[in-house]
Amino acid sequence: MQIRVVQNVLEKNKTVACENRDRLTISGVLCMNVLSAPGSGKTSLLQKTIARLNEEHPCAVLVGDLQTTRDAERLADVSAQVVQINTGRGCHLTASQVEAGLNELNLDGLSFVFIENVGNMVCPAGFDLGEHARAILLSTPEGSDKVAKYPILFQTADVILLSKIDLSEVLEYHSQQVSEDLERINTRAPLIEVSAKTNVGIEPWVQWLLENRSKRVGGLLASST
Amino acid sequence: MQIRVVQNVLEKNKTVACENRDRLTISGVLCMNVLSAPGSGKTSLLQKTIARLNEEHPCAVLVGDLQTTRDAERLADVSAQVVQINTGRGCHLTASQVEAGLNELNLDGLSFVFIENVGNMVCPAGFDLGEHARAILLSTPEGSDKVAKYPILFQTADVILLSKIDLSEVLEYHSQQVSEDLERINTRAPLIEVSAKTNVGIEPWVQWLLENRSKRVGGLLASST
Repeated sequence: MQIRVVQNVLEKNKTVACENRDRLTISGVLCMNVLSAPGSGKTSLLQKTIARLNEEHPCAVLVGDLQTTRDAERLADVSAQVVQINTGRGCHLTASQVEAGLNELNLDGLSFVFIENVGNMVCPAGFDLGEHARAILLSTPEGSDKVAKYPILFQTADVILLSKIDLSEVLEYHSQQVSEDLERINTRAPLIEVSAKTNVGIEPWVQWLLENRSKRVGGLLASST
Repeated sequence: MQIRVVQNVLEKNKTVACENRDRLTISGVLCMNVLSAPGSGKTSLLQKTIARLNEEHPCAVLVGDLQTTRDAERLADVSAQVVQINTGRGCHLTASQVEAGLNELNLDGLSFVFIENVGNMVCPAGFDLGEHARAILLSTPEGSDKVAKYPILFQTADVILLSKIDLSEVLEYHSQQVSEDLERINTRAPLIEVSAKTNVGIEPWVQWLLENRSKRVGGLLASST
């Protein structure tokens, strides 16, 4: 009986996710699901990313957190449109929550919607929210063993951001183990080293976003004009 | 129907947890449930803690991870008894998994069992494993906003360990916000600043463990001899 309930939840989620994705694709908006452990630097990276993009490529953010509106307040400084989704006890966002969040946005003229998922390396992995692609952050202070320990999450990544790379020297961090584990688990997603503090890697990451918008929703944009 | 299933799962878990706790109490073993986000330093702290305690106060560890035996291998260097519990897709340990783990241990003469939970700040909060007390780690690189963002977890703490405190200078970290948030959420649990790298705080943490063993399972020990 338990398994049946879980199947129902996942099936319903998938249906709503597909509707979300269609709606975003038709609007020419690339939607990124941004995932990581708590405190890996999702909000700081999005602040830098949106500050860089927003003028030419307007961005919106849906921010998932159990409680507080702290991340939304931080993001409101750089982006015109921010919606906070408080999940209470929920350990991940669902497609229905994202649908409700999208209802609060004006998609006209938007280039990107970033969904900042709840900080969690397990539960969000199985829930499609209607994104076009997934960015997964792994911060250097978390250690270099996380790809092997959370393979189900990392298998779903379209791009992997090794964040807080500015700390790698003080931590004596070796990204070699991360690369080796990724070779077994996910050879599709590029690994970009980033630091929201020093701006290292922001430009390659922004280029990845622009190219992927072009590739994933650009064709439809071209054919509709 | 979904709610009913969740209730059944939690009720069954609670029953097994109580059995685990009774079994540990009767053996004079203090059982700690150690929780945090991924990469907060649970394994490193346990390595240091057990190296300090093990000679006079024998320790065992049950290590929960989705995959790999890396943490168990690290802990086997300092502790005689280590059991790895791989949860697969499971986002937290359950009391039944701990029961199975305890079956692998020889409790005679043990002073402490540490349960290293799956790295996750949401799901493990609601699952009693049969522990006597909970230690929750929060590492400085995760930022100082996590108590407010994950209050349900921090409310359940008996002791809070602010880990990787050696990085506080380079991070310009201010623990004031953590203390302020804790004043609203949990005034019962002491906050101990620790570093497995520099050994800061290991001694106060060890003293907390010894005092709490005495307090929580010592009475029964005294009356049984």
